[in-house]
Amino acid sequence: MRTVWWEVESATVKMIDQRQLPLSLEIAEYSDFRQVAEAIGTMVVRGAPAIGASAGFGMALAASRSAASDRDRLLSELEQAKSILDGARPTAVNLSWATERVLRVARSSPQQDVQGLVSIVVGEARRIADEDVEINKRMGRHGASIVPQTANILHHCNTGTLAAVDYGTALGVVRAAVEQGKRVHVWVDETRPRLQGARLSAWELMRDSIPMTLIADNAAGHLMRSGRVDLVLFGADRVAANGDVANKIGSYKLAVCAQENGIPCYSVAPTSTVDLGLPHGDAVPIEERDWEEVACFGGSQVAPAGVTVYNPAFDVTPHRYLTGIITEEGICYPPLEAGLREAKSRAERRLGEAASGRRERSPHREASAW
Amino acid sequence: MRTVWWEVESATVKMIDQRQLPLSLEIAEYSDFRQVAEAIGTMVVRGAPAIGASAGFGMALAASRSAASDRDRLLSELEQAKSILDGARPTAVNLSWATERVLRVARSSPQQDVQGLVSIVVGEARRIADEDVEINKRMGRHGASIVPQTANILHHCNTGTLAAVDYGTALGVVRAAVEQGKRVHVWVDETRPRLQGARLSAWELMRDSIPMTLIADNAAGHLMRSGRVDLVLFGADRVAANGDVANKIGSYKLAVCAQENGIPCYSVAPTSTVDLGLPHGDAVPIEERDWEEVACFGGSQVAPAGVTVYNPAFDVTPHRYLTGIITEEGICYPPLEAGLREAKSRAERRLGEAASGRRERSPHREASAW
Repeated sequence: MRTVWWEVESATVKMIDQRQLPLSLEIAEYSDFRQVAEAIGTMVVRGAPAIGASAGFGMALAASRSAASDRDRLLSELEQAKSILDGARPTAVNLSWATERVLRVARSSPQQDVQGLVSIVVGEARRIADEDVEINKRMGRHGASIVPQTANILHHCNTGTLAAVDYGTALGVVRAAVEQGKRVHVWVDETRPRLQGARLSAWELMRDSIPMTLIADNAAGHLMRSGRVDLVLFGADRVAANGDVANKIGSYKLAVCAQENGIPCYSVAPTSTVDLGLPHGDAVPIEERDWEEVACFGGSQVAPAGVTVYNPAFDVTPHRYLTGIITEEGICYPPLEAGLREAKSRAERRLGEAASGRRERSPHREASAW
Repeated sequence: MRTVWWEVESATVKMIDQRQLPLSLEIAEYSDFRQVAEAIGTMVVRGAPAIGASAGFGMALAASRSAASDRDRLLSELEQAKSILDGARPTAVNLSWATERVLRVARSSPQQDVQGLVSIVVGEARRIADEDVEINKRMGRHGASIVPQTANILHHCNTGTLAAVDYGTALGVVRAAVEQGKRVHVWVDETRPRLQGARLSAWELMRDSIPMTLIADNAAGHLMRSGRVDLVLFGADRVAANGDVANKIGSYKLAVCAQENGIPCYSVAPTSTVDLGLPHGDAVPIEERDWEEVACFGGSQVAPAGVTVYNPAFDVTPHRYLTGIITEEGICYPPLEAGLREAKSRAERRLGEAASGRRERSPHREASAW
């Protein structure tokens, strides 16, 4: 099962409702792109690659449910949908990366009528999701090369199947290392306030029988200082051009402590997460979420009534704390900026070649793929 | 209201049940020292100074409820009670510091009969509690000198009235700074897994109208890096001779990040917390607590059933990360070892002088003080 997918017969988007895990596995189904935007905003789905894929499918819904009778009208509706989907969450760049990619394909198919454009949009959204799985597996293979034969890996948030379409980014590296026969044990930090580690990463790893131990976020430093961590891995919500990484709140503290203890620390990020338009991490917008995420739990308040809360969802790890950034095009080492530009352009070249290959092979089959 | 106190009429120990805060303010009452040991173990009362005072009162219960008919028998019962109370929690040294102090006073009063000894034991336990409040106020005055006129203070766990008998250690410094007219705002980190920050520190500060904002532990690094923290303060459960500080899990990460960002970081610790018998922090026994503290939240399980958990209650901050240690005898700066030895001997001299002053003034009134 994937985290998010296109249901061909009903032309709807389905996704695992991650808010219910690990207590129950529930599937949400959406037929309107606005519902998808809301699902992203309320974290039915989360994780940079997964919300990218979801936003792509949101564009597919906008196209397939459109009543537009001409091409320009449809493109204008898609632009509107893109703007709403992009605004669902501010920090991860994958949202706008995916919606932009869908829109660009639609715009660059002037020969298509409305029906043809809808097919192209839906096809591109499905391709983004399919490619994501392949990209994660490539990242996993690259990343597994830096995992020692026996390794205690400290991991933050959830970067697995549930954060992507399948397989995962940082947890994809863990999976690849396990597939290569390495002996891996994962310290899963719970990741307050939303407990993505305790709820989602623990669930995934236990399902895959990968040895793991759950810890409070506060215990990570103690483990590092005690020599019980060989490697720190986390994902990325947005990587700036200089290699600064915006990721789930708490990543920065981990990276600082890893460096202090001489432990390698990598961010695992597909090139879709790299935003060359931002010179450094302090330009990344940091989402602030609801006070209840910190003050309440399971519907009941744990802090005193009326308490003031500050709840930033992400922080920025300056590039100097990272050993490297693992992408689907290889591992970038400092100076990160050059490596990231090279990886990003290789990925774009690969994408362009695949698209032109498809056009040459069968333009008509392509247009009616769904 | 104090956190823990001796009820003269009933000869019982009463304490705030801190597990129920902030939802309700309940008072527990104990008439057997074993109940006090259990209350310490199950964290009805917590915080190094508060469990020291509680253990002293446990000794008072052991004496006042004893059926011993001779002095030697009573002393032997007190030794047994000390051993049980000391074992209630392993990390904080205040437990054995307080029970040892009570026992020493009993042993050094050879002229007393059983009734006289019981009076002396109860009197010493009450004195420990009374002195704790005075010590905290002295620590507060010393500590307030390093609080800027306008300060954002990041604070870990609970070190306030509830962690002591009254006033508090690190939060005592905050209180003293506020009393001196300084403009203080406290970033209260929630302190997973037991949420002493969210439940207890927030409750205390809100009652005292001291401006505060609750954050998830993971947000502390982001605040420090953003220039929104002027000072980091936490308490101590045991300070080794070289100034390494064992304190609530998560303190180490805060101290590392504070140093990385050039922010002063102090541990606030009465000399009763200093253990000159331990050369360095790695010799401090680190308590591991129940898996449920991490896997469950508000009574309901958040992690998958059967999850493996590692839950250390404390970590060690090596002395090189600390700007200083604030004691009731003044602020110790590096090299900490010399300063701590000097503070500890000053405190012992003060204690000895007070005791001999009492003996000279009125040996009989003293013996019948309760």
